[in-house]
Amino acid sequence: MTIVDQCAIVGLGLLGGSIAKAVKSTGLVGRVTAVGRRPEVLEEARQDGCVDAWSLDLREGVAEADLVILATPVATIETLLPVVWDAVGDETLITDVGSVKGSLVDTAEKLAARRPLTFLGGHPMAGSEQSGYRASRHDLFTNALVILTPTEQTPLWALKRLAEFWERLGARVTSIAPAVHDRIVAHVSHLPHLIAYALVDAVAKAPDSALDFAAQGFKDTTRIAASDPELWREIFMMNRPALLESLAKFRQTLDELERLVREEKETTLGNSLARIQQIRVELE
Amino acid sequence: MTIVDQCAIVGLGLLGGSIAKAVKSTGLVGRVTAVGRRPEVLEEARQDGCVDAWSLDLREGVAEADLVILATPVATIETLLPVVWDAVGDETLITDVGSVKGSLVDTAEKLAARRPLTFLGGHPMAGSEQSGYRASRHDLFTNALVILTPTEQTPLWALKRLAEFWERLGARVTSIAPAVHDRIVAHVSHLPHLIAYALVDAVAKAPDSALDFAAQGFKDTTRIAASDPELWREIFMMNRPALLESLAKFRQTLDELERLVREEKETTLGNSLARIQQIRVELE
Repeated sequence: MTIVDQCAIVGLGLLGGSIAKAVKSTGLVGRVTAVGRRPEVLEEARQDGCVDAWSLDLREGVAEADLVILATPVATIETLLPVVWDAVGDETLITDVGSVKGSLVDTAEKLAARRPLTFLGGHPMAGSEQSGYRASRHDLFTNALVILTPTEQTPLWALKRLAEFWERLGARVTSIAPAVHDRIVAHVSHLPHLIAYALVDAVAKAPDSALDFAAQGFKDTTRIAASDPELWREIFMMNRPALLESLAKFRQTLDELERLVREEKETTLGNSLARIQQIRVELE
Repeated sequence: MTIVDQCAIVGLGLLGGSIAKAVKSTGLVGRVTAVGRRPEVLEEARQDGCVDAWSLDLREGVAEADLVILATPVATIETLLPVVWDAVGDETLITDVGSVKGSLVDTAEKLAARRPLTFLGGHPMAGSEQSGYRASRHDLFTNALVILTPTEQTPLWALKRLAEFWERLGARVTSIAPAVHDRIVAHVSHLPHLIAYALVDAVAKAPDSALDFAAQGFKDTTRIAASDPELWREIFMMNRPALLESLAKFRQTLDELERLVREEKETTLGNSLARIQQIRVELE
């Protein structure tokens, strides 16, 4: 059943492409228009049947949309938002898929003071170390968690409509205030990425060609360090305060484990590892 | 083709059990005796057909063996070695599967000064966050890297025989001096484990129930924190100096990335992440 007549997806990478494939495979959207910079990718998507039309012109591409989904890298979302704001109709719902929400929501509220329109942030936690349209999948959001980040200004209809949209794509949907969202993803996503990059760098610089001996454990632990460096530079910058806070917390726990090792506190170390292992085992 | 008449496997956990299953499925060993503490596990293995006999008595279990493989947790290997040394015949080759080699090899050399026997350390890098006989698999060593740690005292026949043993189980075999081995595994294995434990602990202690939002990236990065805490307490303790050194190197790379984020050095950060990502991508 169609719940959106016209949807514009801006940016047809891993997430944008997966949304296009997912809405087509579920029949959720009447007509999908993709906006991007590379004609060959947009045309490939049209021939795949997951978009009905495409445009290189942002204003033109979003003009008729009931739902605009900004799916470009996170820093770009913030620069495109004012352009979209002026180009869409009065009833349009604008959302995004970016990993950082605080400053984006601030930008949207400033724009809304000038022209009342509804922006509601969204963050499907379904990334991958892969990127680009070719990596996109119609089932990327199946059982993924999507966080919506409403504010006091968000109308209920927008929250309901966007929640239904994502649920129909198979996702679990929750809503959290933007600042809390940013703190949470700093811990569970941005911090692990920074650590994985640092770990790869440390082992690459180690003597004895240590990296040649990397086995599955090392590869799993650092898989996300293969993620797009441009995207992650932007995310680290945009969520800087929350990331630095979560990094400080990680340093505390690492310092403590190091102290137990250094001072040979075997019993306490064993108890700490057992407690932590239990937490990790319960995670899945 | 049989290359070992009688093999004793001491400790029938993930590694010991997998060796038993692998040698039986390849027909590499005439007769396999398992030594352990829990009769029900040993009997289960006998009924599975991967051991021919079992014993709760270490001396009795290894007495007739041409090859003794110590596959208990790493700290236990060092306490069992003197007992095995006195119980085996003059031609017996003793090896192990532990993750730390320096002190074990020292112990073996002291024992050899009293009674000339051959110990050659081995380390199959084929662990898992799982443990115990039930997690063992006949193909655990297929394409795994096995590091042998000979010293100047190691006779060539022992190196050749043990290398052939592991190669016939499908492993890739290399040899490295014990101290170098310990430095390498500190970097590629022990450090990532300590970091994964610290990361789980940090996020578990974060506000906003952050852990509830853990997605695939976090789970991959911390999968090894689900590893047996007793085993890892022992490994951290036994490889303490090398682990602390590799931790110092990790702190340097983490400090540098943190500085770039904190001081908003976007270009340098982008370049660093791109360099590191390239290293990680080339890893597999």
